[in-house]
Amino acid sequence: MTDHTSQDFGFGTQIRKSPFFDATVRWGAVDFSVYNHMYIPRSFGDPEENFWNLVNHAILCDVAVERQVEISGPDAAKFTQLLTPRNLSQCAVGQCKYVLITNADGGILNDPVLLRLEENRFWLSLADSDILLWAQGVASHAGLDVSIHEPDVSPLQLQGPRSGDIMAALFGESIRELKYYWLKRCDLDGIPLVISRTGWSSELGYEIYLCDGQQGSALWEKIMAAGEPLGLRPGHTSTIRRVEGGMLSYHADMTAANNPFELGLDRLIDLDMEDDFIGKAALRRIQQTGITQRQAGLVLDGAALSGPNTAYWPLRVGNQVVGQITSAVYSPRLKQNIALAMLDADYSALGTQLEADLSSEVRDVTVVEKPFFDPKKAIAASTHSA
Amino acid sequence: MTDHTSQDFGFGTQIRKSPFFDATVRWGAVDFSVYNHMYIPRSFGDPEENFWNLVNHAILCDVAVERQVEISGPDAAKFTQLLTPRNLSQCAVGQCKYVLITNADGGILNDPVLLRLEENRFWLSLADSDILLWAQGVASHAGLDVSIHEPDVSPLQLQGPRSGDIMAALFGESIRELKYYWLKRCDLDGIPLVISRTGWSSELGYEIYLCDGQQGSALWEKIMAAGEPLGLRPGHTSTIRRVEGGMLSYHADMTAANNPFELGLDRLIDLDMEDDFIGKAALRRIQQTGITQRQAGLVLDGAALSGPNTAYWPLRVGNQVVGQITSAVYSPRLKQNIALAMLDADYSALGTQLEADLSSEVRDVTVVEKPFFDPKKAIAASTHSA
Repeated sequence: MTDHTSQDFGFGTQIRKSPFFDATVRWGAVDFSVYNHMYIPRSFGDPEENFWNLVNHAILCDVAVERQVEISGPDAAKFTQLLTPRNLSQCAVGQCKYVLITNADGGILNDPVLLRLEENRFWLSLADSDILLWAQGVASHAGLDVSIHEPDVSPLQLQGPRSGDIMAALFGESIRELKYYWLKRCDLDGIPLVISRTGWSSELGYEIYLCDGQQGSALWEKIMAAGEPLGLRPGHTSTIRRVEGGMLSYHADMTAANNPFELGLDRLIDLDMEDDFIGKAALRRIQQTGITQRQAGLVLDGAALSGPNTAYWPLRVGNQVVGQITSAVYSPRLKQNIALAMLDADYSALGTQLEADLSSEVRDVTVVEKPFFDPKKAIAASTHSA
Repeated sequence: MTDHTSQDFGFGTQIRKSPFFDATVRWGAVDFSVYNHMYIPRSFGDPEENFWNLVNHAILCDVAVERQVEISGPDAAKFTQLLTPRNLSQCAVGQCKYVLITNADGGILNDPVLLRLEENRFWLSLADSDILLWAQGVASHAGLDVSIHEPDVSPLQLQGPRSGDIMAALFGESIRELKYYWLKRCDLDGIPLVISRTGWSSELGYEIYLCDGQQGSALWEKIMAAGEPLGLRPGHTSTIRRVEGGMLSYHADMTAANNPFELGLDRLIDLDMEDDFIGKAALRRIQQTGITQRQAGLVLDGAALSGPNTAYWPLRVGNQVVGQITSAVYSPRLKQNIALAMLDADYSALGTQLEADLSSEVRDVTVVEKPFFDPKKAIAASTHSA
């Protein structure tokens, strides 16, 4: 597979622009990808600088591509439970949950953040697949009284250790009381918002859901104006930080061909709950028969990778292919090449030695524990060294 | 809106590569976009040259992004009819149909080509949305015995006036007997294929569906080897030609917010058929109440546009916004700027004069008949001039 790290890219109306698109271009976005049929900034010049901005200060990221699916109506709670193996009976109004959406085969269709806005109003904040169509399709014959549509809602991520200070500067000190995976409604100079303490960075962080697509530039500029003196920089979701944190990227690290057990996400499944959900029977079968492959963390020997992998890299023991690397990147903090892989279960034990075929070269790799970076251990280590 | 015609683009494993990806890069693809979560070549250097190659000779295009949805099982015919307002009762085995997929509101979710491979085996060759999820979602509670999955099938388009000669060189003279919108199975030196006389170019053309993803490069090279002496060039779907032909691009020219009547696609709806389909009640209501907006063709005065529009352009009468241009391009054959627009029905009559706001300038525009280019009229004109 030829490796292309960058190439010309044509913009068009066939792919939607985020309400923050103009603002991100003004603030230096130079590289875009496409996610959920929308453009998403992927670089402001230097991915490593973006990583350090994230872990030392704070970054503001346009993640409007997490297109929301709103489920409302008298049967909304029942219907939402039908979509996910996670038991939602304890999910309070105002709470968020990381959930999986599974099909009848138990395959993963998406791994959104669920927001419970009201007793019978939910948002799914999506990874990269058209769950709006899935949910509307399920609803077509489910016999439940629900309304499903995409609201005019566009999230930003404000992530990094200074994000609390920036949020306090914007919304007052009380915002610091917002608990992990809870949400609240508020506004900023009249701009309607929902705020949640969630993100995709393994750092302290918030998502700010703009509820009026006309005010994208205004919101972005207000946040940057308050945040820049506190170290805020425009940024993008960091491949380095998310692989360090062992966080999964839909389509890269898992697809509908994977079930939650293979990904070690058993905690997101409740096969004993009374309520039905799509995939329950299939997941029961898989639980009984067991899995043949398993997601694992790897370190790769040798020189620093020049960037994230742009192809899947086969993993071998001798001539036998035993899996593939799905995401790989060099961590400048850990000074190591780290990766996520899907492996034959027989070769997934910690310490297993394998070879990775990078096409241009072969590297020795070792199965290691995830996450690669744990902030608590790091704090202990830095206290020790200080 | 800032106009970006090209910008750096990062490749990654989160977006799938077509089996023809390596071949298209070898043959000079320099610009990609993303469609159905896959990379699609958008330029081999000069879009105008690609247009002339298409209308005078032939081009080979990687359209693996038309990801197939296979519907099979005892109730496949009944289920497939449930998905579309087009009456499929006369669709024979071996035939193809251009169909719309509508949701319960009558909104358009996709406009695929349907292929009937067997009595109870269908493919939907998709535009840009996850109809696999829609169909699986509908099937989850529809009570019909169907299996729905994505097969290992990747289409190429061979389009242009020389495509018949090239197909005859590859598959023998009998391939010329394949009728418009019919399909047949065949193979090329053992590579399993389905061939249909379809495309997205308004020119004579074929789609060649590779049924073994491992043989993408082999198939591409075989076709180019046979076709290059006959004028075949690597290419991509031509915005110029498809706008000339009045062909719609999903997400650009229509979305789920549009119904078929607004697009003048009444011929694709049968509200009188006995069988049920999703959206029937909503489309009946819309038919009774009438539509408030309508798709139309436009010509724009002034200098040749430098490329396709990268943003929607508002259309005005005085200060009143009465619609927007969805696709616009300069046709070097017609020597005119031509466009597709969605207009308030009151302003959609042929000959209506409007102003288009291109952000950097305002252009006078006129509503005209579609398609912009009709090969039959052109043949008459060229015979006359010859």
